[in-house]
Amino acid sequence: MGYNVTQKLIKDHLVEGEMMPGSEIGLKIDQTLTQDATGTMVMLELEAMGIDQAKTEASAQYVDHNLIQEDSKNPDDHLFLESAAKRFGLHFSRPGNGVSHPVHMQRLAKPGKTLLGSDSHTCANGCMGMLAMGAGGIDVALAIAGEPFYVKMPKVWGVKVTGELPDWVSAKDAILEMLRRHGVKGGVNHVFEYYGPGLKNLTAMDRHVIANMGAELGATGTVFPSDEETKRFMKLQGREDEWIELLADKDASYDVHDELNLSTLGPMVAKPSSPGNVVPIEEIEGEPIYQSYIGSSANPGYRDFAIASKIVEGRHIADGVSFDLNPTSRQMLIDLSQEGHIANFLQAGGRLHQAGCNGCIGMGQAPATGRNSLRTTPRNFPGRSGTKEDSVFLCSPETAAVSALTGRITDPRKSDFDFPKVKDLDNPTVDTRLLDEPLPLEEAKKVELVKGPNVASIPEMDELPNDMELPILLKMGDDISTDEILAGGARVLPYRSNLPEISKFTFEIVDETYHDRAMKVRDEGGHAVVAGVNYGQGSSREHAALAPKYLGLRVAIVEDFARIHWQNLANFGVLPLTFTDPSDLKELEQGDVLVFKGLRDKIKQSPHIEVEVKGKDKTLKLEHALSDRQIEIMQMGGLINWIKNRLEE
Amino acid sequence: MGYNVTQKLIKDHLVEGEMMPGSEIGLKIDQTLTQDATGTMVMLELEAMGIDQAKTEASAQYVDHNLIQEDSKNPDDHLFLESAAKRFGLHFSRPGNGVSHPVHMQRLAKPGKTLLGSDSHTCANGCMGMLAMGAGGIDVALAIAGEPFYVKMPKVWGVKVTGELPDWVSAKDAILEMLRRHGVKGGVNHVFEYYGPGLKNLTAMDRHVIANMGAELGATGTVFPSDEETKRFMKLQGREDEWIELLADKDASYDVHDELNLSTLGPMVAKPSSPGNVVPIEEIEGEPIYQSYIGSSANPGYRDFAIASKIVEGRHIADGVSFDLNPTSRQMLIDLSQEGHIANFLQAGGRLHQAGCNGCIGMGQAPATGRNSLRTTPRNFPGRSGTKEDSVFLCSPETAAVSALTGRITDPRKSDFDFPKVKDLDNPTVDTRLLDEPLPLEEAKKVELVKGPNVASIPEMDELPNDMELPILLKMGDDISTDEILAGGARVLPYRSNLPEISKFTFEIVDETYHDRAMKVRDEGGHAVVAGVNYGQGSSREHAALAPKYLGLRVAIVEDFARIHWQNLANFGVLPLTFTDPSDLKELEQGDVLVFKGLRDKIKQSPHIEVEVKGKDKTLKLEHALSDRQIEIMQMGGLINWIKNRLEE
Repeated sequence: MGYNVTQKLIKDHLVEGEMMPGSEIGLKIDQTLTQDATGTMVMLELEAMGIDQAKTEASAQYVDHNLIQEDSKNPDDHLFLESAAKRFGLHFSRPGNGVSHPVHMQRLAKPGKTLLGSDSHTCANGCMGMLAMGAGGIDVALAIAGEPFYVKMPKVWGVKVTGELPDWVSAKDAILEMLRRHGVKGGVNHVFEYYGPGLKNLTAMDRHVIANMGAELGATGTVFPSDEETKRFMKLQGREDEWIELLADKDASYDVHDELNLSTLGPMVAKPSSPGNVVPIEEIEGEPIYQSYIGSSANPGYRDFAIASKIVEGRHIADGVSFDLNPTSRQMLIDLSQEGHIANFLQAGGRLHQAGCNGCIGMGQAPATGRNSLRTTPRNFPGRSGTKEDSVFLCSPETAAVSALTGRITDPRKSDFDFPKVKDLDNPTVDTRLLDEPLPLEEAKKVELVKGPNVASIPEMDELPNDMELPILLKMGDDISTDEILAGGARVLPYRSNLPEISKFTFEIVDETYHDRAMKVRDEGGHAVVAGVNYGQGSSREHAALAPKYLGLRVAIVEDFARIHWQNLANFGVLPLTFTDPSDLKELEQGDVLVFKGLRDKIKQSPHIEVEVKGKDKTLKLEHALSDRQIEIMQMGGLINWIKNRLEE
Repeated sequence: MGYNVTQKLIKDHLVEGEMMPGSEIGLKIDQTLTQDATGTMVMLELEAMGIDQAKTEASAQYVDHNLIQEDSKNPDDHLFLESAAKRFGLHFSRPGNGVSHPVHMQRLAKPGKTLLGSDSHTCANGCMGMLAMGAGGIDVALAIAGEPFYVKMPKVWGVKVTGELPDWVSAKDAILEMLRRHGVKGGVNHVFEYYGPGLKNLTAMDRHVIANMGAELGATGTVFPSDEETKRFMKLQGREDEWIELLADKDASYDVHDELNLSTLGPMVAKPSSPGNVVPIEEIEGEPIYQSYIGSSANPGYRDFAIASKIVEGRHIADGVSFDLNPTSRQMLIDLSQEGHIANFLQAGGRLHQAGCNGCIGMGQAPATGRNSLRTTPRNFPGRSGTKEDSVFLCSPETAAVSALTGRITDPRKSDFDFPKVKDLDNPTVDTRLLDEPLPLEEAKKVELVKGPNVASIPEMDELPNDMELPILLKMGDDISTDEILAGGARVLPYRSNLPEISKFTFEIVDETYHDRAMKVRDEGGHAVVAGVNYGQGSSREHAALAPKYLGLRVAIVEDFARIHWQNLANFGVLPLTFTDPSDLKELEQGDVLVFKGLRDKIKQSPHIEVEVKGKDKTLKLEHALSDRQIEIMQMGGLINWIKNRLEE
């Protein structure tokens, strides 16, 4: 029985576990990718772990998210990241060089390798015959330190691609069709692997578009084979020698079967406010738009911009439309400029923005209140554009460009001019000027981290004590989200690189007095919180575990946890416990003191532990669900201490 | 005795007063310019005044400041401004079309005309043989309504220009030399008029550079003649038919005499943190830089970018330098792109930003903490870059480009390559796509103002009552600045278009309880504040008068006023009074109630009025300094009511 490409990639990198769908496996990680929004904390974690140099084959730190410099915080972070990249032996992609995913694809992606990135669209590089996955920051920090990445063995969802895209229809419509079929949760615990005769009609950048939005399907990853097209792409990037062929075995099979006939596809649109809310364009035609926006890692290629340029060339955008061009890399912007496409855009009435993520994540280009925005970006979740109660539609560059001319969502096939075929350039610019090479170890060791006033090292975390008396500082209800634990937004996120500062916002929405009360008892041993069901739902942000930990949170006792927050608590040394008898929650009050005795040993001996409520005739029965590895991590006070220890050994 | 150009412009527009330096004159205004940061309030003032259509020959509303759309506030403002421009018969320059000053110069400036703008660099258009002046928003609103602009008759400072600029030296060095000589207050109450044989060696855009930074000299305006070069420029813009010649009479004279020999100039640099802090480059050479920034209305021309492009062409910026390109207009960006300059910049490692004011006013491109930024912008006041305690140096494009290559402030004359002469294009792009024409009155009348949730009409202001009992809500000391009255900054300024919202921040720094206490007594007749000397110093922002007025401030009694705030209070119907005996301030307490009787009549009868302190055996002797016109305005409750009344008559 042969292997498909996904299975080959996993088999070649398997260091723990078995390839049984659903069971945990440990994978060797060859490459990592961090961007600036998540990367500052990863770099601080590397510092706290005492890493000397990345153990991966290639790791790159990109600056693409926080490019707007309205005060010193973002540029200070850029300098910190630059110094950290030098110190830890990473590539550094400077501000203005472009979005991580296409730049990584052009400069560093390698067939047959694994890539872990602290960005959910890391899966985009699966287009290059890689197993590329998004993960939390600390997971990426560990991968840089040479540790395996643990993940559930995915099922492989084989998508047989046939046919050829018609005029006016492009790769974005193909992935939107997949989202129409399967929705935003359809791909959970699956890798989508594309194969079949239709692949020869999809360029490497077309495959990037499809792989990228695997994130929207909820998939563990997207995988394409490495074939002649991959070779062609790498040759144009001057990296033909790094190419290898990687195809599924003839007799490979898939856990799930799907087929995508490109010839039958039409333009698709995801309506507000989910990328899974997809309809054929016929159902939404005529809707007025206020903004047409082209760019992002979901349509990053030269072709995606060139086709739009050719569509608007010599024409004018409709009155009142804001036509926003958001180039994705500097290398490609050079080509677009030299080929006359930038001038086309500007003459048609376009607004040219700097190369980077920008509007895709609400860093500029937010639409006006109550107006429709039509975008080639991957996501239209509520408010992601920066505007509350926004109305964002997702589509292909063809649809966005034609609609900019009409001021309405328009089926590009109904244009009164011919489809302007464009192709990749035969000789694209290769420019590595703003992508710094890693320093050799001896030089790297001399580099001092550059910390502006807003960058603070992660304070040392102590081990889990055996005996503790912990007051309950908060008693909460059900469905407490990570936003309530530590809010996002423009008021809080600028402190992403400064744990002491960001921790001041912890639980602020739940109880403003929490921070001060926690600080009071921090040096006396810390505190506990209790809550109901679905604790820690929502965003995966690590800060929601790190900040309470910093304030002395030792245990969180709840009815049940949301999965990622449970993982984050365990990673950072906060013991996550659940009530054996959920009705116990009612009997606890804020201010009650919990007496833990011999805790370090107890969690190792059994998943069941008993805890006394001081001064009350009450013993709580509690449970933990930690693995042996996690128990060891917990005892040491979290992953940072655990890896530090391993490195010292 | 003949006239110089300035005197001719004034004579042709004089509607009140005499041309005696220092005495107030009223001038007919032909054109106005508003930008978005100040324009939203001007448009709301036009609405409150009940204006139907601009009475000027040409008025334009530009969107160039608030281009970063991180939420809906800026794009909502853009839509409001667009609708207001349509409603009131203004040109509308859309977001992305460029900075007001160069766009106005290219599309609308006309020799022989007056231009009033709610932007301090409005003087830039003096390069076109115009009298162009910056002013407060309400002054511009009145000009749009057809009212004269009142200003002190300036002295004319004649600058005889001779010689020709050497290689590596440009117009920016010429104006920096003027600032070196005369400092940032040297030009107060003067118009700088340039004349002489050297003018033939300065292009229209060179003259723009020099005229623009007249604002930094503190001047009332900058004037160049309209000559053959002006004609050449207008011809390239397709507007030759709008050109007239306007030269000084042969026997014209000037109040002050100066000479500028271009041949003797070298590169100049303004050190932190004042544009008046100018030294020859020799004194500052070698200083390391972290950022080199080219753009802004102080170097807006095609040549300014093209010369920088030719300097970096085929070369690389130094390691660690951020090379920021900030194009000033879309029309010019098209040319730069078509001529290969954009590709040059990108290949050298530059970051290309959208066309607009951007970093010049801290809207992006803020430097990192403790790093030197070298810029072609007009101002380096502390913190203007967005970074607190910044370190910004001002220079020419030549110096900025050469220094980007070396990473240090570098005398461009010492380059090891030849000076790459560049000239204006013979056939530049003329593109009016994003500059909308005014609507005809009948169509304009049908336009509804588009107000997002953050745009609120200015509430009606009532007349000054005759009899009032006003509690003193604040007793303040000396030197209260407009920042203390109403702070600037990112927390407050987003509410610039919403008086009820922005008023919540009034006097917040002085006393947090003020707003609530003021609201309590607002409907009972309002309140008073008292303070010491130099009340209202600092920024000229109108909101510092409008917001307290909205909260019911009727009179401000102080030892003395800063000039502009005094004017703003008078404009918005808050009576500014001073103590005849300054020691009276000591005897007043917060909470004291002042009894005004027959006030409307009293201020007309005499500058001296007496006011009783209720329940205390005390009568205050107070004074006002209002002109008859201002008394009438005050009685009516401010300029908005006054003009509304005139229009109804």
